[in-house]
Amino acid sequence: MSDSIKYNLDESRLPRFWYNIAADLPTPAPPVLHPGTLAPVGPDDLAPLFPMSLILQEVAAEREIAIPEPVRDVYRQWRPSPLFRARRLERALDTPARIYYKWEGVSPAGSHKPNTAVPQAFYNREAGVTNISTETGAGQWGSSLAFAGALFGINVTVYMVRVSYDQKPYRRALMETYGARCVASPSMETASGRAVLERNANHPGSLGIAISEAVEVAAQRDDTKYALGSVLNHVLLHQTVIGIEAMEQMAMAGDDPDIVVGCTGGGSNFAGIAFPFLGAQLRGGRKRRIVAVEPAACPSLTRGRYAYDFGDTGHLTPLTKMHTLGSTFTPPGFHAGGLRYHGMAPLVSHLKELGLIEARAYQQLAVFEAGVQFARAEGILPAPEANHAVRAVIDEALECKKQGTSRVILFNLCGHGHFDMQAYIDYFAGKLKDLAYEESELAMALAGLPSVPA
Amino acid sequence: MSDSIKYNLDESRLPRFWYNIAADLPTPAPPVLHPGTLAPVGPDDLAPLFPMSLILQEVAAEREIAIPEPVRDVYRQWRPSPLFRARRLERALDTPARIYYKWEGVSPAGSHKPNTAVPQAFYNREAGVTNISTETGAGQWGSSLAFAGALFGINVTVYMVRVSYDQKPYRRALMETYGARCVASPSMETASGRAVLERNANHPGSLGIAISEAVEVAAQRDDTKYALGSVLNHVLLHQTVIGIEAMEQMAMAGDDPDIVVGCTGGGSNFAGIAFPFLGAQLRGGRKRRIVAVEPAACPSLTRGRYAYDFGDTGHLTPLTKMHTLGSTFTPPGFHAGGLRYHGMAPLVSHLKELGLIEARAYQQLAVFEAGVQFARAEGILPAPEANHAVRAVIDEALECKKQGTSRVILFNLCGHGHFDMQAYIDYFAGKLKDLAYEESELAMALAGLPSVPA
Repeated sequence: MSDSIKYNLDESRLPRFWYNIAADLPTPAPPVLHPGTLAPVGPDDLAPLFPMSLILQEVAAEREIAIPEPVRDVYRQWRPSPLFRARRLERALDTPARIYYKWEGVSPAGSHKPNTAVPQAFYNREAGVTNISTETGAGQWGSSLAFAGALFGINVTVYMVRVSYDQKPYRRALMETYGARCVASPSMETASGRAVLERNANHPGSLGIAISEAVEVAAQRDDTKYALGSVLNHVLLHQTVIGIEAMEQMAMAGDDPDIVVGCTGGGSNFAGIAFPFLGAQLRGGRKRRIVAVEPAACPSLTRGRYAYDFGDTGHLTPLTKMHTLGSTFTPPGFHAGGLRYHGMAPLVSHLKELGLIEARAYQQLAVFEAGVQFARAEGILPAPEANHAVRAVIDEALECKKQGTSRVILFNLCGHGHFDMQAYIDYFAGKLKDLAYEESELAMALAGLPSVPA
Repeated sequence: MSDSIKYNLDESRLPRFWYNIAADLPTPAPPVLHPGTLAPVGPDDLAPLFPMSLILQEVAAEREIAIPEPVRDVYRQWRPSPLFRARRLERALDTPARIYYKWEGVSPAGSHKPNTAVPQAFYNREAGVTNISTETGAGQWGSSLAFAGALFGINVTVYMVRVSYDQKPYRRALMETYGARCVASPSMETASGRAVLERNANHPGSLGIAISEAVEVAAQRDDTKYALGSVLNHVLLHQTVIGIEAMEQMAMAGDDPDIVVGCTGGGSNFAGIAFPFLGAQLRGGRKRRIVAVEPAACPSLTRGRYAYDFGDTGHLTPLTKMHTLGSTFTPPGFHAGGLRYHGMAPLVSHLKELGLIEARAYQQLAVFEAGVQFARAEGILPAPEANHAVRAVIDEALECKKQGTSRVILFNLCGHGHFDMQAYIDYFAGKLKDLAYEESELAMALAGLPSVPA
């Protein structure tokens, strides 16, 4: 019996470069626009928010961007992360498919997010920044930046969506143990927060609102920059260490994925595993199916409009062309806070428009059923976000069984669910419901999209 | 800058044998006695509780015991576990000491416990056992056996100390996600549970009571065996994979520990890291300081009596000679449930009596202070149990600084604290107190020790 086999890359194989898919795109992604002038933004427009090194990565054209040695030194603590063959899950499904997963939950914060939190903290420190403000939904990103801030001696303030702040005190405690300051959003600390609270003193918050608060603070204070945990090009860039390692590990396993799967909220863990494989294809390599999986209750890629929109609710960010549900749309409170974002990474949206990736959406009951099946077979309890990818993988594997064909499926298991146990408790107690999709609320949000000449 | 360096063993270096320290002891540990006859127990006496393969390991004399391949196949998922040089902690302490830690939190259940849960489930399945009963305090052991039970198709019932059952619903949810059944102990399901509840309907439970319940169920039912997560020789044996790997990893690092540290509740994670080093010393190798660290509120090694005592409160187990606080002693409710046990592994106690190991005890405030310092430096949030070891290591490193000497310190970081965040919240809120040690209650418990002729 050979079981659940692990493919470990030696530390000497830790990537030295991030992969920049912009270098291989058949057509470039549409430019980011200044919301006032509607002209493409330049580096100086973004300088109040980000250190210049990150802004230059945002618009970089070269295929490989060197990972600084101090960042590699921190990565070394948990990277290269393991790749597993899910043999026990395959047996449980009785499928001819061969299933592999890249396991990002081994990072100190428990997800893929430190892959970008660490370089972001590093570049900020290099630029002399002493304070970073950010937002968090489920808390994966906030705790990752708190961790990175502790390592590089930067004060981190996290605007945490209020409903998460109240429901997930343990995630908050993790951030505070790392030394970060957590603020329930909407808060009275910012004009955007106060504006929301004036309309509704009990507003549960949203990622869009928390982004407004964090951006506002950074824009107003000289000693403070802003950090975003997904969506932006440089964030997706940093996550490509996942796929670069996975390509080498799949070669170690002597296998090559026919299907690559990741869940999508803002798009960064999906991009992390998918872009290096996609880049190889764009340079003339083999075509693979690349599948983005999102929640049916926040279906930006499958049902959103591809249009210019704001990244936040308070309309403080530039305009980016992306699949959006409208920046005023508040997704319902399903149990995968990391996927409750109205928009999608512009690069992921662009690839969808080019027909280079697929997208599908699942309701949460099916998603948790898959997560429990995975936990019992593989022993790892996934984050609710990751369960979306697990659901798609199990469905693909069952389809292989039905067709009697063997395919190789690779997915990114982006984090563990140790801080999401209430969701599992609710699932077992029958309290989770599939959510009705509020077509009317969405239509209203889409009607409010900013008007940008074609 | 070279930072927090990881020493990964290749999968081919996964141990093929467990190390049995009994083969190298200068004098054998005192025999286990039948509580009725006071004669040494034989394998048949234990047969109602354990499969014969585990009983034979309990009394084995050979130095190396082969790890079955199906167990190695499961171990492979997370073993060899990483060894880290804690460079960032060293810098934070400004110490000349070189600090290393073996990180056992990478297992699916988050601690060292699966190292023995997996072989125990395997040997039970080989013996045709379909049900296992066990107890858990903090929940680390219960979730590990739940995980192992899921892999080998065995039904697991966990008697969980009631105060933990109520206070740690997320740990319970983890066990249930793996498919185990959790019962708050004391329960109405057993005579021992009912006897306790008759005296006190609101009894918070203790590990000793939960053991009684689990043992009772196994003794009475033909289809059910019992599993213990610490204390017994075969449990300590299985944990030696930790130290066997660590010895090889320290050699990779080109360093040799002067001090080896582990926290002690029942003694198994301590034995796991310490015994292979101790064995090398007993066979004529270098002498090292081996330090067991325990809670001041449950100080079996530092203040208990070395005497024959029961392993449980209901007096259903055999008598073992160990450092004990008395089987009727209920330790106060400090925040390290895994260390709230009245006794100590007989092998660890024997080594203490032989002067081969040191022991020390800490109060919980100092312990959590150390844990937070570790989390901020190394990024890993330790379990409260592990914080005891961290405290001792930091004190040793500060002593090195004071003396201006460099020593090499190795410790076992036995698990993560993701399911113990309430303890951290209480610590930050100033709600944790150092506990007064109840000398009178202890004296009473010690007075009740069974009388066994010398």
